[in-house]
Amino acid sequence: MSSFEQSQLNRVKRVSERAAYDRETIYRIVDDALVCHVGFVQAGQPFVIPTIHARDGDRLILHGAASSRMLKHISERKDICVTITFVDGLVLARSVFHHSMNYRSAILFGTGRLIEDEEEKWRGFKVLTDHIMPGRWEDARQPNRKELKATSLVAMDIETASAKIRTGPPVDDEEDYELPVWAGVLPIRRAILPPIADDKLNKSIVLPEYIEGYPRKD
Amino acid sequence: MSSFEQSQLNRVKRVSERAAYDRETIYRIVDDALVCHVGFVQAGQPFVIPTIHARDGDRLILHGAASSRMLKHISERKDICVTITFVDGLVLARSVFHHSMNYRSAILFGTGRLIEDEEEKWRGFKVLTDHIMPGRWEDARQPNRKELKATSLVAMDIETASAKIRTGPPVDDEEDYELPVWAGVLPIRRAILPPIADDKLNKSIVLPEYIEGYPRKD
Repeated sequence: MSSFEQSQLNRVKRVSERAAYDRETIYRIVDDALVCHVGFVQAGQPFVIPTIHARDGDRLILHGAASSRMLKHISERKDICVTITFVDGLVLARSVFHHSMNYRSAILFGTGRLIEDEEEKWRGFKVLTDHIMPGRWEDARQPNRKELKATSLVAMDIETASAKIRTGPPVDDEEDYELPVWAGVLPIRRAILPPIADDKLNKSIVLPEYIEGYPRKD
Repeated sequence: MSSFEQSQLNRVKRVSERAAYDRETIYRIVDDALVCHVGFVQAGQPFVIPTIHARDGDRLILHGAASSRMLKHISERKDICVTITFVDGLVLARSVFHHSMNYRSAILFGTGRLIEDEEEKWRGFKVLTDHIMPGRWEDARQPNRKELKATSLVAMDIETASAKIRTGPPVDDEEDYELPVWAGVLPIRRAILPPIADDKLNKSIVLPEYIEGYPRKD
């Protein structure tokens, strides 16, 4: 997959050796995430709203119902910024100054658009559901016309984007390696715990394979 | 602790029964998080940048070096929005329409200010370090004057804020409870893995108790 051109908008300015502009790296972060943070401006005031998303090629689908503010704004086709971040570990250096985090983040820029066409909306729901849990769309009851109308979806063509990634051990000043201070990384992961059945679940219904083998399990 | 007054800025408009405006609920989310998303506007364009933070009473300390853009903006004392989100589980209803997430999110509004006073900056670094890992400030080599100068910190007085929380099982339409579809919650947690010592660590240095018993371990 190709790379995004660097511009004023997506260029990583600090610690630029951690930057990536290729779609493969950026989209891997986007596709792994269960939540994103959508930034938009209303009357000069910035808002950052968490919501679910899914990628459909070079387009992002956002669950527009997160906030009526966001919807109103997005239907006006203004610029939005979507950011995704994973904290992968605390990087404990010998000096406080060189403490850091291991992380993966992606920042995407584009313009939002309300999905109004019914067929496109149907596809949007399927893409969102497949992103969160592959297999669920085919198993659960799919939306009816009334439900389709009751929820809003937003599409954002990814105009430009970048990623920033840090991995590995701490890096200290040469003279600090002699200090009697423990140094290393405390790794952090997203853990998927065993499913909890609804109290009202008919006991004859067994846990489906696609939940048992959920792909985001480490 | 008291509550934030509801205003146009912090009012939760959708599913308002999930909203909270009391400091205790909001600050518990802020204090548990290892990363926040800072939203700001530059020439009409929204940006959302992830960075580390810590709370000092009704003030938020932000690691300003996250982006030169953010720093420039914040030193101009413009409005910022800081959002924190935990995904706690996938809520699997019998219908796609009633799928949801369990989550905790907090949205904070205020105006950024560069910390220039040396003593205030020193305290800011201590507060940040204590937030990420209690005990580390006393153990690692503390910053010298040159290092203090090389990093920027931002203070934001929390002017208003709100939280939004969903917990519990799925809620389906009455007629869907008969469907042969597994329903329940797939819980998600932040997991802290065993520490990985730096390859260059002097083997006589043992893992300190404050890392072994890291408070964010579940």
